[in-house]
Amino acid sequence: MNTDKIPDIIIGRLPLYLRALQRMADNGVQTTSSQELGEHVGVSAAQIRKDISQFGEFGKQGTGYSIAYLLDKLREILKVNRIWDVALVGAGDMARALARYQGFAGRGFNIVMIFDNDQNKIGQKIGDFTIEDTANLVEKVKSAGIKIAMLTVPASAAQSVTDQLAQAGVKAILNYAPISVNAPKNVKVQYIDPSMHLQRMTYYL
Amino acid sequence: MNTDKIPDIIIGRLPLYLRALQRMADNGVQTTSSQELGEHVGVSAAQIRKDISQFGEFGKQGTGYSIAYLLDKLREILKVNRIWDVALVGAGDMARALARYQGFAGRGFNIVMIFDNDQNKIGQKIGDFTIEDTANLVEKVKSAGIKIAMLTVPASAAQSVTDQLAQAGVKAILNYAPISVNAPKNVKVQYIDPSMHLQRMTYYL
Repeated sequence: MNTDKIPDIIIGRLPLYLRALQRMADNGVQTTSSQELGEHVGVSAAQIRKDISQFGEFGKQGTGYSIAYLLDKLREILKVNRIWDVALVGAGDMARALARYQGFAGRGFNIVMIFDNDQNKIGQKIGDFTIEDTANLVEKVKSAGIKIAMLTVPASAAQSVTDQLAQAGVKAILNYAPISVNAPKNVKVQYIDPSMHLQRMTYYL
Repeated sequence: MNTDKIPDIIIGRLPLYLRALQRMADNGVQTTSSQELGEHVGVSAAQIRKDISQFGEFGKQGTGYSIAYLLDKLREILKVNRIWDVALVGAGDMARALARYQGFAGRGFNIVMIFDNDQNKIGQKIGDFTIEDTANLVEKVKSAGIKIAMLTVPASAAQSVTDQLAQAGVKAILNYAPISVNAPKNVKVQYIDPSMHLQRMTYYL
């Protein structure tokens, strides 16, 4: 399958399909239709068929999609048919929440290191993790071959930590700091900013 | 200005512009261009001009945008030129992080109530808030006229709490539970799911 030219907007919907299909599988459902899947994720059946057909022929006319098969394929496409180690930078409340978050298990991610530059936090524990010194971030992340990081530092520190992560070889950053950061072209950055999500909805109120 | 028919995808970019412009204003910058703003948010200058022109004529050829003026207009369009009270349901680690989160201040939102159904949590404090019983959610949220809620309950509870929030008159829900929920047509739901953001990036690794 040639997935070189798949538009980013389609890639963005695949995790949504993956999550809904996983939920169906957890409930013992074995097959689904683009219609049914669409109702779960709020995307039209036609759009789902079009999105999925980009990657090959997964469904059969009349019998729909095998959920197990489609899950396998989506995990393969999104490269989450493996576990990625994740470094977390910024050992505050959000890091604590993420370290205990149940939504990473079975979805391809495992937090393995937590960093902070606060001397009062370094050496303390968050769950099973000992908070490490950000001064050692580049060396530790590089030698562990970690490619994914989550940023939960204050806005003022986000850019410098992003620079360090890029230097350490990280290629994907999920930024919880409420600020846009500049990263090299080969480093992807996604943002989680609850105020932005809320502002997107207040327009309609 | 006629904002009835603005596509949702444009509305989705406005909070991004708002955040970047606020950051510039905080740094003492007074004017900007679509080019400069675009570099901050990763959107083309042409797209930014097109998006903003949907709402009227805000910029002057050659002199660019007045940041203060554009901030005012964007806040007005997104209806965050006021403070919205927000109810938080699910008093776990994420609620704790959100209750202390600095990214709501000055952006239109203020958490005013926290609910949980765990008898061991009810009556306990998170910051200044006393955790209230979810059994009283519909009544309390309705009588306070709260229109916005954040859901940080386990996936298994997300749908029933969504139903209660809709019944209480909430029109915008930010769902942190890793599950899609069904809400009435007049209730907007946005999702924050870090695994989905990460999966969107692993595709490119």
